[in-house]
Amino acid sequence: MMKRTVGVLLFEQFELLDVFGPLEMFSMLKDDFAIRLIGEQAPVVTANGGPRSVIDERFADGHRYDILLVPGGMGTRREVENGALLDWLKSAADRAEIVASVCTGSALLAKAGVLDGRRATTNKNAFEWVASQGPKVHWQRKARWVEDGRYFTSSGVSAGTDMGLALIAGLCGIDQARQVAHWAEYTWNENSENDPFALAQR
Amino acid sequence: MMKRTVGVLLFEQFELLDVFGPLEMFSMLKDDFAIRLIGEQAPVVTANGGPRSVIDERFADGHRYDILLVPGGMGTRREVENGALLDWLKSAADRAEIVASVCTGSALLAKAGVLDGRRATTNKNAFEWVASQGPKVHWQRKARWVEDGRYFTSSGVSAGTDMGLALIAGLCGIDQARQVAHWAEYTWNENSENDPFALAQR
Repeated sequence: MMKRTVGVLLFEQFELLDVFGPLEMFSMLKDDFAIRLIGEQAPVVTANGGPRSVIDERFADGHRYDILLVPGGMGTRREVENGALLDWLKSAADRAEIVASVCTGSALLAKAGVLDGRRATTNKNAFEWVASQGPKVHWQRKARWVEDGRYFTSSGVSAGTDMGLALIAGLCGIDQARQVAHWAEYTWNENSENDPFALAQR
Repeated sequence: MMKRTVGVLLFEQFELLDVFGPLEMFSMLKDDFAIRLIGEQAPVVTANGGPRSVIDERFADGHRYDILLVPGGMGTRREVENGALLDWLKSAADRAEIVASVCTGSALLAKAGVLDGRRATTNKNAFEWVASQGPKVHWQRKARWVEDGRYFTSSGVSAGTDMGLALIAGLCGIDQARQVAHWAEYTWNENSENDPFALAQR
């Protein structure tokens, strides 16, 4: 299998587990995936709660990523108004093999127009706000994650880890994904339709 | 409730989710917990898989932490021979209210003598090696996590997140811990004896 790059967007007040849950799973398959943290400008980005991460690459570096991963977090409320970030996101998504978001990360993809006409989901605790960022998106109220073509969007925070394993299953096979979950002693919710946190259907 | 500091030891090749799974849960309660990342010397520490974190404090700063959290990862194989780290760990553990480890982090606590005479557990994929670091520890082959007085040790990687919520339940109440899990859309394994990855008993 070719080695793929997993490019993860960071911004101030990103949610820790949105990023490091999926990355835990990718990090166990070093022959298959290389992880890159991407930021707009500053060399260091502070997560919600205080932990700081060092970015590997900037928007201006113009790199292409095979898998583009967009986390959520309180910072998304600010970044939906950041034109430079939305422009970069649109361009990076256009060039990616797979575009994925966790939690309110789908608000950024939606605002950038990346999800227009697609099915998608998000954190059930922030559903109405996220949906308002993308009126042309077909928002799903019941889904652990949604796969629509090359677009994957997960529900809140820890749902991203289940989606990450689904990405690994699609690229490396279900046995490999289950092996990774076992190494991490993680009880994988394999079924994207099994959503314990679903909202009532309208 | 008093605000507690959660001090997390970082070293090269720490395991991402061992650190950021529990911290996700603590980070949701900003009025109750302040997070500090601690390293021996270097300002930046690289996790297994490549992501880099910035430390907030060094061993030499001599700070006390209410909750001391020790992750695992491949780096523990090297750090069990690091006398400076083991000395710091012993001192920090002596002064902490709660001492907790995730995965092979218990090998470091064991080697430092912190767990002598205590019940403890670790990653089931690395059980024999970890147990060999602490012959005076009562190692448990079946436990999602083990609580023995002020010492909490969890099984592999994602078990640390379940243990983190148990710590929050003990300090802030079970309702608060369940609320945090709900915000994170996390299906919390609340029962420390429910270990899907247990080894056969001897």
